[in-house]
Amino acid sequence: MCALRLIVANKNYSSWSFRPWIALKVKGIEFEEVFSQFNEETGHKHFGEFSPTKKVPVLQDDEISVWESLAILEYLAEKFPEANLWPKDIKDRALARCIAHEMHGGFMSLRSECPMNMRRAEEAISVSDGVYKDVKRIIDIWRDCLEVSGGPFLFGAFSNADAMFAPVVNRIAKYKLSDDPIVVRYSFVMTNLPAWQEWETAGKAEPWIVEEDEA
Amino acid sequence: MCALRLIVANKNYSSWSFRPWIALKVKGIEFEEVFSQFNEETGHKHFGEFSPTKKVPVLQDDEISVWESLAILEYLAEKFPEANLWPKDIKDRALARCIAHEMHGGFMSLRSECPMNMRRAEEAISVSDGVYKDVKRIIDIWRDCLEVSGGPFLFGAFSNADAMFAPVVNRIAKYKLSDDPIVVRYSFVMTNLPAWQEWETAGKAEPWIVEEDEA
Ligand SMILES: N[C@@H](CCC(=O)N[C@@H](CS)C(=O)NCC(=O)O)C(=O)O
Ligand SMILES: N[C@@H](CCC(=O)N[C@@H](CS)C(=O)NCC(=O)O)C(=O)O
Repeated sequence: MCALRLIVANKNYSSWSFRPWIALKVKGIEFEEVFSQFNEETGHKHFGEFSPTKKVPVLQDDEISVWESLAILEYLAEKFPEANLWPKDIKDRALARCIAHEMHGGFMSLRSECPMNMRRAEEAISVSDGVYKDVKRIIDIWRDCLEVSGGPFLFGAFSNADAMFAPVVNRIAKYKLSDDPIVVRYSFVMTNLPAWQEWETAGKAEPWIVEEDEA
Repeated sequence: MCALRLIVANKNYSSWSFRPWIALKVKGIEFEEVFSQFNEETGHKHFGEFSPTKKVPVLQDDEISVWESLAILEYLAEKFPEANLWPKDIKDRALARCIAHEMHGGFMSLRSECPMNMRRAEEAISVSDGVYKDVKRIIDIWRDCLEVSGGPFLFGAFSNADAMFAPVVNRIAKYKLSDDPIVVRYSFVMTNLPAWQEWETAGKAEPWIVEEDEA
């Protein structure tokens, strides 16, 4: 039995679920995975049974319930200090949080026009200038971090910042948004994580199509 | 001389600036306030001189620069543990972060249709159903927190969660979106903070009109 439970939706599509899931897996933290399928007909109303926002992911730790992906990542960082989910250096940690929060509240064009999709073939689509502006900023972030840390992850070892950007790695590849060397290098590192492969394989094996996420 | 500098924009309008500013003031943390005026003609491009997102607020602490309001609040919580910017109890702290993140990434209807405005007369405008849905969820959050903590703030003493919801207190009042007793009670507590009054007075005294924020 495991006290920690993470409720996630469809692995092919659920970008927010992917973030805490990959952090838990990469850090080897044991948890029970609970699957709650998207249901377009009911507008995902059933998420309301466990989530006050009717959204996933949700982390349950005995009687503590945590929603919002980044609140979950903060909770895990506190609960498992030895996992070093945030960088140890105060300056690095501040920067890691800045870019994690930027991801959470920004990049609206990329997020709405190019949904995460594990199964999708790599193929360009027509996108707005906003998407290219988002991608440019993301590449700047990745370059700045990787230049200072030396890689392979944004702050050397895998951190919550990498978890937050994981779905973006998929989006840039699937919609062929950039072949900048920084993107190639960082995407290679991320997609070769056993945790990434496990999620991707499971996502691809899912039979369900969510129309609004098929760009 | 003070090592901590917070860069904020117009007090009448800048909801994100208000959040870390009020937290610093309420907790009596010394800082130098730096004003950077909104400039509609240039699309606020001048924020790019100190902010990689071209947005405010930005906190500077010697050579550490922190953008994103909630990353700033996390930084302050770490740097000034005696200020108790997050609740001490792990369960309360988890909940405080959930609702702070919900505020950061959500309530889009309320945020876009009802901009914060200190100077505005209290007057209802026609708003979408989404605004009422947002307000309903906000009241549920406030009620749940105040019932458990007993008030006066969401988690008893003022915390980062209150800082995150401060601009919402203004919005609900200015656009007459609710007279629920919970709103009346919590708004009274927030708007009577000396820090609130200081910000509001300064905002009202500003001569500048930002057209897109005049709903
Ligand atoms: N800000 C939230 C976003 C969560 C979110 O939007 N989750 C999506 C799935 S990836 C969801 O549950 N959507 C259902 C809905 O919006 O009805 C977080 O960081 O966890
Ligand atoms: N997610 C950011 C939002 C910051 C933000 O949008 N700030 C506004 C002022 S309240 C701004 O600088 N806007 C200028 C612009 O978007 O060009 C945060 O939490 O700090």
